[in-house]
Formats: sequence, C-alpha cells, structure tokens
Amino acid sequence: MKITLPSNVDALLVKRPENVRYLSGFTAPEDAWVLYRPEAPVLFTDARYGEQAPAESRVPVEIVNPREGYGFLEPHVAGLRVGYEARHLPCAELERLRAVTSAEWAATENLVERPRRLKTPDEIARIRAAAALADRGLAWLLPRIRPGVRERDLALDLEFWLRREGAEGAAFDFIVASGPRGALPHGVASDRAIEAGELVTLDFGAVVGGYHSDMTRTVAVGEVTGEMRRVFDVVLEALEAALEAARPGVAARELDAVARRVIEAAGYGPQFVHSLGHGVGLEIHEAPFLNARSEEVLEPGMVVTLEPGVYLPGRGGVRIEELAVVTENGLELLSHSPRGWTEV
Amino acid sequence: MKITLPSNVDALLVKRPENVRYLSGFTAPEDAWVLYRPEAPVLFTDARYGEQAPAESRVPVEIVNPREGYGFLEPHVAGLRVGYEARHLPCAELERLRAVTSAEWAATENLVERPRRLKTPDEIARIRAAAALADRGLAWLLPRIRPGVRERDLALDLEFWLRREGAEGAAFDFIVASGPRGALPHGVASDRAIEAGELVTLDFGAVVGGYHSDMTRTVAVGEVTGEMRRVFDVVLEALEAALEAARPGVAARELDAVARRVIEAAGYGPQFVHSLGHGVGLEIHEAPFLNARSEEVLEPGMVVTLEPGVYLPGRGGVRIEELAVVTENGLELLSHSPRGWTEV
Ligand SMILES: [Mn+2]
Ligand SMILES: [Mn+2]
Repeated sequence: MKITLPSNVDALLVKRPENVRYLSGFTAPEDAWVLYRPEAPVLFTDARYGEQAPAESRVPVEIVNPREGYGFLEPHVAGLRVGYEARHLPCAELERLRAVTSAEWAATENLVERPRRLKTPDEIARIRAAAALADRGLAWLLPRIRPGVRERDLALDLEFWLRREGAEGAAFDFIVASGPRGALPHGVASDRAIEAGELVTLDFGAVVGGYHSDMTRTVAVGEVTGEMRRVFDVVLEALEAALEAARPGVAARELDAVARRVIEAAGYGPQFVHSLGHGVGLEIHEAPFLNARSEEVLEPGMVVTLEPGVYLPGRGGVRIEELAVVTENGLELLSHSPRGWTEV
Repeated sequence: MKITLPSNVDALLVKRPENVRYLSGFTAPEDAWVLYRPEAPVLFTDARYGEQAPAESRVPVEIVNPREGYGFLEPHVAGLRVGYEARHLPCAELERLRAVTSAEWAATENLVERPRRLKTPDEIARIRAAAALADRGLAWLLPRIRPGVRERDLALDLEFWLRREGAEGAAFDFIVASGPRGALPHGVASDRAIEAGELVTLDFGAVVGGYHSDMTRTVAVGEVTGEMRRVFDVVLEALEAALEAARPGVAARELDAVARRVIEAAGYGPQFVHSLGHGVGLEIHEAPFLNARSEEVLEPGMVVTLEPGVYLPGRGGVRIEELAVVTENGLELLSHSPRGWTEV
C-alpha cells in the first residue's frame, strides 16, 4: 500500500493498529509499528512474533525489544523529518520519541486513513465474504425471531452462528431493538422479550480477514399495522432513492440530502437523527462519512453503508442499512438479504 | 472514588475509558470525560446518554455536544491548572484543549491507575462473581475436552456458555493451547484438533459489571507421562510457594522471585519466560504488575494473578494461574477450580 507524504516529512511513524495492518498485512498490529518511507518501509514488532510477522508482513520486519523504549528507531530516523499520527499518538509517547531520537517530529493527520477509503479488490473480497456470511446468518436467524424470545438471546445466537461459520468476530455489539426500543438508534440487545405485533431492528456484521460488514434489517413479528408500517415505507423509499443516486462524482452531503428529503417530505425529518452512512473496512466506522457536513465525493472503490432511519421516542423505529461498493457506474450491493417488508 | 492530585494541578481531565468508569460508574465511558476536582467532579457525555448517564453516574452529569469541540470545558476550567493523562491523550487533542480553553494544561501519569490498584468491596464482589462464573464454566467444559475436538471450538463453547450464563463478555481472546502449542505463552485457540496423551492449557475469564476474571488450568487428555508430567509438578510447586508467600508488605519482585526460584531449582528457569502476574479489575492487565523490575509492595485490596509457567519450544508447556485478593493476613483465592493434576 502506497501513501503520499506531505513535503514537510521524509517518513511517517504509524502506530494506529488499523493503519499498521493496512500498510503491512500483519495481523497483530497492536504490538507493532510501521516506519513508512516510500522506498523502504519497516515493520517493528517483538520476539513473540518472530515467526508470524515475517510470514504475514508485506514490508520487511525488524524484531525489537519495546521494553527498552524507542531506541530501536534512531538508526532509521536519525536526521530525518518524521511525521507522527497526531490524532492517535499519546502526548507522553511523543515526548519519549523526541528524547531518544535525533529526528525532527511533525504532526500529521489522516495520511493513512485517506487512502484507506479506496479499497483494493482484495479488500473488497474480504468485505464481500463478511457480508455474505451475515446474509446467511440472517436467513438462519429469521425463523428464530418469535414472541417471547429475548433480544439478547437473538444477538448471542446470531454472533455464535457467525463465529462458528468462520467469522473472526462480531463486527460490533449487535443491535436487536424490539418494539419501543426500536426508537433507540444504538439499542444494543437487552433482556427485553419480543412481543407479537412489534417491529424488530437487527443491526449486525461479521469480521473476515480483518474486514467488517454492516447491515440492518427491520422485520415485523406477526402483523404490524398503523404508523410504523408507514414509517417503514418511508425509510425504504429514502434508502432506495439514495441507492439510485449513488455514483462516482456525487457529493456525500448530496447523497445524505437525497435520503433526507424523502423522509422530510413524509414529515419525519426531525426523527432521522443521524447521518446517512459511513465507510466500512478495517474499522466498522471509517472514512468516508456520509453526512450533511461532509466534503467527500464518492469515488470507485469506496465501501459505504446507506442507512436511513426514523425513530419515534417511546413508540419504535425503523432503520434499513445496505452495504455497497462504489463502482465506475454506480453502486454494487454487498449485502443481499431481502430488504422489503418481512413478517416472521 | 477519591484520587489525590499533585500540587501542580487543581483538576484532572480524565478521558481513558476505564478511568472514567472508575470515577463515575458510567457504563459508556468511551463516550464521556470526567473533569475531576475533589469537591466538584463532573461527567460530560452527549445527548444519546441523556437518561442513562444521570441514572448510572455517581458524579453530576452535564450533557454536551462533542461535535462542537472542547468549548464545553471552558466554564469549568477557566484560570485553573488542569492535568491531562499524558499516556493516553493524543497530541492533537491536547492542542485542541489548549486552543479553546484558558486553563494551564499539565502532563500527569497514573493518577487514577494508582488508586485503581486497591479494590473496594463492591469491586471485589464483581471480580468474585466473574471468577465464580469462570469456575462453573470450566466444570462444564472439562468433560467436553476430548481427542479430535478443535481448540477453537472449545474456546467458542466456553465463551458462549459464559455469556449465556450472564457474562457481559469474554475477558480476552481465550487461550486453548494443546500439545506442542502449549509452548506458546499466548496460544490463542487455533484450528488444531486435540490428541490423546497431550496437555491442554486453558486461560480464560469472564466480565461481570465491568470487572474481569482470569484463570489458567492445564489438564491432561488421557494418560500423559514423561517430562511434561514433571514440568506440571514444578509449576504447581512454584505457584503454591508464591500463594504461601503472598501477604501485605511483600514486594512484588520478591513474590516473583519465590516462584522463579522453584522453577530455577528444577532447571527450567530460562523456560519461565514471563512475569509472575498482574493486577485485574476494569482491565484484564493492570497495576500492580508482579515482575522482577516491580517497585510495588502488596497491600490489602489488591486483586492479582499468580501464574507461573514453563514452555518447552516444539514440545509443550504448563501454566497454572490463580486469581486472588490480598487480605490483611495473606491471600484469599477468587478462583476455586481444582488446580492439581487432572485427566479428562
Ligand atoms: Mn452502520
Ligand atoms: Mn493472566
């Protein structure tokens, strides 16, 4: 992976785990650093990974003893101007770097996060695999959503199924929000038992090869009528308008506005309390962020969610979320579960 | 929870999640800050937690909009000397704090981590509950350890059992290391199938009320003879010597030495490649660290692990780990699973 250094630095010290993994492929990035130089990147890690790191890393590996501090860096950075990740490096670490090296240290932001927005075919394949697993997991779970079942048990069942089938982990704490809890945009599964005649919002994902998937479906437990049914139709229409409008060159804030206008026209604008979506990759939420303040413009290779929602406090809510990759012509969906009105 | 501020600061801005939780009791500490002053601490969080935060927090809550930056702090810190957590606050955050407040910001380290070493009765009760759950989980798992079973499936089975029984989560990625993989001190469960005549090391724990447990057992799958049997006896003897020696006033490095001397006398000193143990609480590994370089002295209320191990590369290993609280007279075990030679 190549990154572009600004003209005021010769190298970049990368410590944020997702960025270390992105630049090297090493799967224990919490215990490693990358010193990035276009011609000679190095991965530093400790003796526990003496076999694993060279086997996994795309960049040369140097085994060091971090207990002895940052001294191992000096031969690599002496006399250089080196960038650090200002949004992630703790203040005390910068002091230590300055104390034991003769480099000139300079604050940088988003130098790795920006290229991470555009996925390679290999990265897209991992996200696709995670999304396919999630689709299969939902198909397995749907018949198990019944009155009397606790939200938490559904979330556990789904997580365990995904992990048994090969997911490295859950992409996040799954949201299972039934009935009035559907009004909580982040209603992590609770002890509440589901009742007949309610909507249930399921927001979940898998991790495969370090990459996440993210999908939300809202389903009806038996017959649901009245306003929530209408809210569902509005959210679905907003999502489909955004899916239709998404293509390279469209501004993220315009895409957010496309979905928001549908919901506003139906009178639920103030109840769509969050942004339209976000990038997905090594992190579950990463750039590009699709919201009304965004400066981003869609480009081929971006993997994003589109997830409009309407939340009626005390009553319930609906969110439907698709995961898709921006292509030359539009969007290709990575999530494939039916998104229309579904009764279980 | 009270902390002692050094004389160069009037207040401390706490952002590290475990420290925020410790000072407030708020269970979404990733999304919150505590401004600690002995007479008037404040918890800041956002509108998503408008109901939850006042219900949970032991300190007064102020709902703020973090999207607008750190401006919310100025009325609280104007003219004060405020400490920040230098080992955790990113450099860019400190710049932002300095830009929008008139406080004088000063680096601090471990001001909350130090008092966290000494647990209250409520904290000990949570760790005890997590350890009791882990004991029950092991009793459930033991009959399921059989030749042909994969390490990963045992780890998943145990995690799921613990979470179904009420654990909020796994304390860490469980270690299930069989046969030659026992030589890896951090042998997270793999696809390897267990074989008859091998040792299996299980290192796992539960989380209850935010607090962790941690326990390791090494069991034999059928009959195991030869050197590994002798290694087991050595590790067990080292552990029991340390359990015997532990009491208030004993230096952590002396306790490490007590266990190490037993292992060295048996000729396995170089194969005990890690330290004796660590504190356990809101984090799985926290102060006090029990190792040869430690300046710590045991005090009543510390909750620590004692976990000697011997690792023979390519052949296997043994680790046995107990979790205990330091009392006025010695130690009280929190882990209660039988630790002697066990064949499954
Ligand atoms: Mn999402
Ligand atoms: Mn431990």
